[in-house]
Amino acid sequence: MSEPELRALIASIAPVDNDAARAAADRHQRLAKPAGSLGQLESLGAQLAAIHGACPPPVPARPVAIIAAGDHGVHRHGVSPWPQETTALMVGNFDTGKATANAFAAVTGVEVSIIDAGVATAIPGSPDLVRVDAPRPTGDIRTEPAMSTATATAAILTGAARTLALIDDGADLIMAGDMGIANTTPSAALIAAFTGNSAKSVTGRGTGIDGPTLKGKIEVVEDALERHGAEREPLATLASLGGLEHAAIVGIALAAASRRRPFLIDGVNTAAAALTAVALAPDASGYLIAAHRSVEPGASAALRHLRKEPLIDLGLRLGEGTGAILAVPLVQAAARVLHDVITLDEMGLG
Amino acid sequence: MSEPELRALIASIAPVDNDAARAAADRHQRLAKPAGSLGQLESLGAQLAAIHGACPPPVPARPVAIIAAGDHGVHRHGVSPWPQETTALMVGNFDTGKATANAFAAVTGVEVSIIDAGVATAIPGSPDLVRVDAPRPTGDIRTEPAMSTATATAAILTGAARTLALIDDGADLIMAGDMGIANTTPSAALIAAFTGNSAKSVTGRGTGIDGPTLKGKIEVVEDALERHGAEREPLATLASLGGLEHAAIVGIALAAASRRRPFLIDGVNTAAAALTAVALAPDASGYLIAAHRSVEPGASAALRHLRKEPLIDLGLRLGEGTGAILAVPLVQAAARVLHDVITLDEMGLG
Repeated sequence: MSEPELRALIASIAPVDNDAARAAADRHQRLAKPAGSLGQLESLGAQLAAIHGACPPPVPARPVAIIAAGDHGVHRHGVSPWPQETTALMVGNFDTGKATANAFAAVTGVEVSIIDAGVATAIPGSPDLVRVDAPRPTGDIRTEPAMSTATATAAILTGAARTLALIDDGADLIMAGDMGIANTTPSAALIAAFTGNSAKSVTGRGTGIDGPTLKGKIEVVEDALERHGAEREPLATLASLGGLEHAAIVGIALAAASRRRPFLIDGVNTAAAALTAVALAPDASGYLIAAHRSVEPGASAALRHLRKEPLIDLGLRLGEGTGAILAVPLVQAAARVLHDVITLDEMGLG
Repeated sequence: MSEPELRALIASIAPVDNDAARAAADRHQRLAKPAGSLGQLESLGAQLAAIHGACPPPVPARPVAIIAAGDHGVHRHGVSPWPQETTALMVGNFDTGKATANAFAAVTGVEVSIIDAGVATAIPGSPDLVRVDAPRPTGDIRTEPAMSTATATAAILTGAARTLALIDDGADLIMAGDMGIANTTPSAALIAAFTGNSAKSVTGRGTGIDGPTLKGKIEVVEDALERHGAEREPLATLASLGGLEHAAIVGIALAAASRRRPFLIDGVNTAAAALTAVALAPDASGYLIAAHRSVEPGASAALRHLRKEPLIDLGLRLGEGTGAILAVPLVQAAARVLHDVITLDEMGLG
């Protein structure tokens, strides 16, 4: 199978360069501004230097959002009021540029790429998408694993291959988006499994479900975790509790890290994937940047576990990569300031 | 004098259009996403509709940051460790594109314009800047008014005239930046006067002063407020406690409102000017958008008084318009989503 390929991908991820981070922090002390006056953007600049192993780090010029879409067997339990076909319809909207992710991407200069990671119904316009080869929708995680570990591996490698191709083509800032009706349920299960938090504390209202639906959703997550048991091997946990878009996003994050490119975590679903990626490859953590704080409680639990402070907190809860796409200019600004700004010495104030 | 001109500017400010805001909120309920899932960007979209009197509101295509720079007589009390000449040196950096504001503006596509609002020393390169005609630096607010009301009026009108010219030239999203060593001291005094908060609660560390310097700075603000007395006429308060760059920024905000253009509040100094503008022209408030939450406590006090929720909270405390410049893509995104995104009806899910 392709497990050797996955092992090779993981092995190719090097730790970030802490010397470059220190050089950036030092440079920030010498720029023409009060020390520390750019707050979190100074630590972000240092992280970018660490990622690229250079100070100043390059200013990302070709940001790409890869939206992975998939459907979920657990949808049958009424965890979302939206019909499963919505996933396919929204993929059609991404393809024709009519979704929120596209509108935001047009503003921040982000290229949108789509992966069909297990969409269960026909996508309008039948676009020619990169496609994960897997049964769709996934298994019902309440009663059975979502997929085999071989399928999870294949989905990871599909996400990684697409990302590596985009990086070969010039992509230098990577983010993922997700689409998948019911996918906050597997995300909650993954986050509970990887962080040790209770199902209740990490399961949220997703698209905005009412109290009784939330109660049922929490029970589904609890049942899934009970079925899953104490297994903590990351690939097995992903296959048991996750979704195909989660697996593809794990591959996107791992591929970005393997090529020393920053990866922006979007909302709860990419955060669940990021947790999985770091469980598989701890050194990937240094390449991850939290773009925003989703309303979904599992997102905050995941970011806390990853020790990531988000850049934006606007009460977003859409997914699609929208929060990551909005954060792109902040990342570019954090890098650019280390290039363009004169030093106090150069001004005669050193 | 020019007070009739100022009265005419104020009289030309119309209330924002609440019907257009309601139309935007209603449209957000019908777009292809869960209702409310864009959080604060949905209310921002509604505000932009109200400002322009149209739904969807135009997507700002030509954002302009007007940086007003001035010096302050109160600098003599050691409220800042930076020499007064720093103001002029930084104006030189803005002019040659070497400041943080320029680096951020290059990322978010913002044009930078500079007003010499009372710089007391020679600006390197002697650039040909719009210039406020006034004694410089201002009077020491601890012991005397910063300026006459005639001078304050002239500075307001200089800022307004520059802004109106830029709007005539196509500027459609206006923000101000400030530069002025010691200017967080007059800002604290203005904010205390307009909000009723104590000097101690609104006076902060500015560029990062130590404890004893902060204690002295608070005493200076307290003395200025005591000298100023109970006067609450906004123009007199500005002249007594403010700075020339504050006055110019008041004019920038009023001019933006008079032409129904959004005005982004940056940090504590533009927030103090925004408070003054709203005291002069209450209807201007609807045109103001809080770009970010500065570390400076006076900024939060001012935003609370103005009932504005900031878009970004990154621990910035630089001024120069940097926080406003970073928020531009968020404003563009909030407008663009109301144009580009398909409705649920159009998808067959209505």
